[in-house]
Amino acid sequence: MINYQEILDKIYNEVYAEQYRGKVADYIPALARVPVDKFGMAICTIDGREFIVGDAHENFSIQSISKVFTLTLAIDKAADTLWQRVGREPSGNRFNSLVQLEYENGIPRNPFINAGAIVVTDSIFEGIGKTKNNILRFVRELSNNQTISFDEEVAESERIYGDRNRALANFIRSYGNLNHAADDVLDVYFHQCAIPMSCIDLARGFLFLANKGFSPIANKQILNIRQAKRINSLMITCGLYDAVGDFVYRVGLPGKSGVGGGILAIIPNQLVVAVWSPGLNEAGNSLLGTLALELFTTYASNSIF
Amino acid sequence: MINYQEILDKIYNEVYAEQYRGKVADYIPALARVPVDKFGMAICTIDGREFIVGDAHENFSIQSISKVFTLTLAIDKAADTLWQRVGREPSGNRFNSLVQLEYENGIPRNPFINAGAIVVTDSIFEGIGKTKNNILRFVRELSNNQTISFDEEVAESERIYGDRNRALANFIRSYGNLNHAADDVLDVYFHQCAIPMSCIDLARGFLFLANKGFSPIANKQILNIRQAKRINSLMITCGLYDAVGDFVYRVGLPGKSGVGGGILAIIPNQLVVAVWSPGLNEAGNSLLGTLALELFTTYASNSIF
Amino acid sequence: MINYQEILDKIYNEVYAEQYRGKVADYIPALARVPVDKFGMAICTIDGREFIVGDAHENFSIQSISKVFTLTLAIDKAADTLWQRVGREPSGNRFNSLVQLEYENGIPRNPFINAGAIVVTDSIFEGIGKTKNNILRFVRELSNNQTISFDEEVAESERIYGDRNRALANFIRSYGNLNHAADDVLDVYFHQCAIPMSCIDLARGFLFLANKGFSPIANKQILNIRQAKRINSLMITCGLYDAVGDFVYRVGLPGKSGVGGGILAIIPNQLVVAVWSPGLNEAGNSLLGTLALELFTTYASNSIF
Amino acid sequence: MINYQEILDKIYNEVYAEQYRGKVADYIPALARVPVDKFGMAICTIDGREFIVGDAHENFSIQSISKVFTLTLAIDKAADTLWQRVGREPSGNRFNSLVQLEYENGIPRNPFINAGAIVVTDSIFEGIGKTKNNILRFVRELSNNQTISFDEEVAESERIYGDRNRALANFIRSYGNLNHAADDVLDVYFHQCAIPMSCIDLARGFLFLANKGFSPIANKQILNIRQAKRINSLMITCGLYDAVGDFVYRVGLPGKSGVGGGILAIIPNQLVVAVWSPGLNEAGNSLLGTLALELFTTYASNSIF
Repeated sequence: MINYQEILDKIYNEVYAEQYRGKVADYIPALARVPVDKFGMAICTIDGREFIVGDAHENFSIQSISKVFTLTLAIDKAADTLWQRVGREPSGNRFNSLVQLEYENGIPRNPFINAGAIVVTDSIFEGIGKTKNNILRFVRELSNNQTISFDEEVAESERIYGDRNRALANFIRSYGNLNHAADDVLDVYFHQCAIPMSCIDLARGFLFLANKGFSPIANKQILNIRQAKRINSLMITCGLYDAVGDFVYRVGLPGKSGVGGGILAIIPNQLVVAVWSPGLNEAGNSLLGTLALELFTTYASNSIF
Repeated sequence: MINYQEILDKIYNEVYAEQYRGKVADYIPALARVPVDKFGMAICTIDGREFIVGDAHENFSIQSISKVFTLTLAIDKAADTLWQRVGREPSGNRFNSLVQLEYENGIPRNPFINAGAIVVTDSIFEGIGKTKNNILRFVRELSNNQTISFDEEVAESERIYGDRNRALANFIRSYGNLNHAADDVLDVYFHQCAIPMSCIDLARGFLFLANKGFSPIANKQILNIRQAKRINSLMITCGLYDAVGDFVYRVGLPGKSGVGGGILAIIPNQLVVAVWSPGLNEAGNSLLGTLALELFTTYASNSIF
Repeated sequence: MINYQEILDKIYNEVYAEQYRGKVADYIPALARVPVDKFGMAICTIDGREFIVGDAHENFSIQSISKVFTLTLAIDKAADTLWQRVGREPSGNRFNSLVQLEYENGIPRNPFINAGAIVVTDSIFEGIGKTKNNILRFVRELSNNQTISFDEEVAESERIYGDRNRALANFIRSYGNLNHAADDVLDVYFHQCAIPMSCIDLARGFLFLANKGFSPIANKQILNIRQAKRINSLMITCGLYDAVGDFVYRVGLPGKSGVGGGILAIIPNQLVVAVWSPGLNEAGNSLLGTLALELFTTYASNSIF
Repeated sequence: MINYQEILDKIYNEVYAEQYRGKVADYIPALARVPVDKFGMAICTIDGREFIVGDAHENFSIQSISKVFTLTLAIDKAADTLWQRVGREPSGNRFNSLVQLEYENGIPRNPFINAGAIVVTDSIFEGIGKTKNNILRFVRELSNNQTISFDEEVAESERIYGDRNRALANFIRSYGNLNHAADDVLDVYFHQCAIPMSCIDLARGFLFLANKGFSPIANKQILNIRQAKRINSLMITCGLYDAVGDFVYRVGLPGKSGVGGGILAIIPNQLVVAVWSPGLNEAGNSLLGTLALELFTTYASNSIF
């Protein structure tokens, strides 16, 4: 049996020996002030074991990792029309690019780029307050952590510095692919990005993806087996923006990153691993987080390939 | 234990009931005259079992599936410089698009689009005749079939109708990313695409990818375990052109398709499955081949997710 | 001496014989209800003669023709920094495309595409009310018509259906190339597009461009000779969006069109001609207006080439 | 009456005072060795006067200026189908870009970018030798200079370093928009670019464009008045690649540049001016040549606007 704790400890030491830790996101003040030397990692297995190292209990802004939560809600709720409104192909472009959207008439390439995530949020929109509540309740249930809340300061900063996302939302709407007011949908979107969670929260929260759609944490079937597999499929082809190929080449797992420095990865039928290191590489993914996951699959011999 | 023969038979029946079988590639006469109702499928497991159905012993033009053979040769031989010359990201564009190449200064996105495969062939080029021999010897050894040869009629047709590939090769060369004469590299490239093989040939030939780099057929370590995993990683993010997301969503396996109607897919540590149905969907991948693989992972409950 | 009245009458007859009159803009109700069979044309010469035909005194929405007014104001007022914020090259793209803007980091190609005009309006912005007043006063003075006002219904419709322009403004702002709030600048922009004017108003209003910058109507030097020439230069390379080449090929004059069906054209040192026919061609320019101008330069042998 | 000689002398002095003269084209050796301090300028008026300054009698490689000669031949010979095969809109892209060609299915934007010029040459192709002869005879007649010939060294260099043009030609052919073999058409194309001519040759050679299509030099109607005007129209919107807007803004005339450092400009109904200075600006147009033309229209107050 693999000794995950030993592996985590080994990774921790190696990662801390790295000189260059990447560059913390600085487009909003609340992210810019996160210390670059934070590092945490957590593993939850489908048979109930948990392993952590470093700052695995410290909250950070999950940012784009929230796109997996909202996609899960949307698949459960709006799957019929969802795939007419958003594609399932890797974009090959930056997460906030508008180019492809214009060539493809307002249909975002996939639910994990900003444009696609905005459409997903629109698809589960039932008023600002109610949608925000639905998201929070869902995340709390999945992670079994009732203290999870929006960070209003971060959400407000996202709004203030949200010109690009406003451009995206209005652009999508100009193609008839946004059903609600752009500012309303963005209000929810900015909040979902501004959820602080820890590595252990995330590893617990997404355990259903490693477990055929059933969450042992919430003791509940979140998605059916086919739906859960398909979210993993989408993550492996689209989960890390324009660096997904490199990530899969190195790590060999489906994953989803956030600009707060978190990365989530799934080993189907085994476990979820969440890592956090706020310094980013050029593609906007956690530099040491990616390295940590690469070491993890090497030491555990546990990529899916 | 899964009864693969039963599954193949079931798939065969379902596939034959389909009314629409897609459109056979017609850009060269030799492909255009292949009957649309051909269908074959073959499975080779790493423990030495083989299962077939339909026209699994009939040869078809492997076309782009050859890109996996030449990439394997290049990784073995030119890995040091290869990843400076070609990327590892999905392209999000048609297999023969030049747009991205211009924006990215002659560095093809990945080795499985035409531009990337031309660079790969350039990287293993040692003269026209010798390179062609090297490729043929490699394919024969991997498939344990000494009768495999180039189809000179197809190769010549590829050359005659090869304006787009000539544009690609000269374009790449204009960026200094082709070391040999465009026409020479293309001569090899047109021949590698023009190899006729059967489903069983292909399933045997790529068994090393499911088996940590060791080919039980050739009784030889072809790549090391890390290299083999990485080819699978590249196939899952880049193996089906601009339809890779949809393929992985539906099938859940790394794969590589060819315009001759063949598709290869890998279940790591278990088996290789090869399917052939010459009718293509809009993305240029075998229509019923994709369906057959989707049914296969459903019935065998055997996607990697 | 050329008999302009005779020419106008001849054009009028020819144009009315045309079966197909194009398609009236229908993206907002106020434009959609304009009768397609309206047609007016007016000429003002620099020596004070005026000629009209048809509905030359009837008001229509000048839309993008307003971009020449605001550019004139900006050149007078903000010329120092203007050309760092907006280019002077034809875009080769639709008037409301965002693609180029992304590739060129938020610097619009020229002041006559929507993105560029929004930057121009931003450059003369001094608060919503004051900027609107400045524009109106300027237009009234140039045209010697104090009745010219904003059409608030059209302006409000532009706002309601303004998702694309909101996308543009926010996108530009995300690159730091918009100094004021996107919604504020757009408020002015939507109003400047919503000015109703007649052919004779326009011909008078732009007479300074044919007359070395001096307006005989306002009895005032509006721009210096070099500035006036340069606006004409910009119109000949950028004045008709992605159909400018065809327009210049056929008409041979610098011009500016609006989606309301108006087109303005300049014969330097001679005259201004304004035409209105609400039916548009595929490029969004007045179909019969373009034909009328082509006939005009043919009959008057008066293109600048 | 304007004293053109005085103006040329003044320009000559000003230009020679410039410190930075641009960068000589270095993609082929024969161009790279041209001294950067060469400068010549020639004017031919339609009433038979000629003015020169500096190296106006020295030959240089006309390069892309040849595109105006071949377009003239094509308009005379193949006009019916020409405009189905090539557009009339500015490209907004580098002269040798392939991007637009792909988005627009192999129809080049205009006859003055490389792709368009290759199609033009294809449209007048009657065998390599004959087409080359036709071009040479035409240029000699227009310039009244029987010594004009191809520079075979330059032509051969163009071929050797012609990967990008080979990419263009094969790409166009892949869309069915090249009727002859790519290498054959390119042979002619490389030769037409490799014609050495002087400023005075060029000014005489294109005098028909300032003179309603009639060449006083050849004493012959080369094009009808409408055709001649339209070539001027095309030059003003498309003659200087992606810097046409800036050129027209500064110079105010239709023109055509070549990478050899020559620029041709037309004042309709008055004169042709040709200038040569081998140093190029970033857009690939003669740096001091552009400045000289700007000074010329300023001193002669003679832009068309």
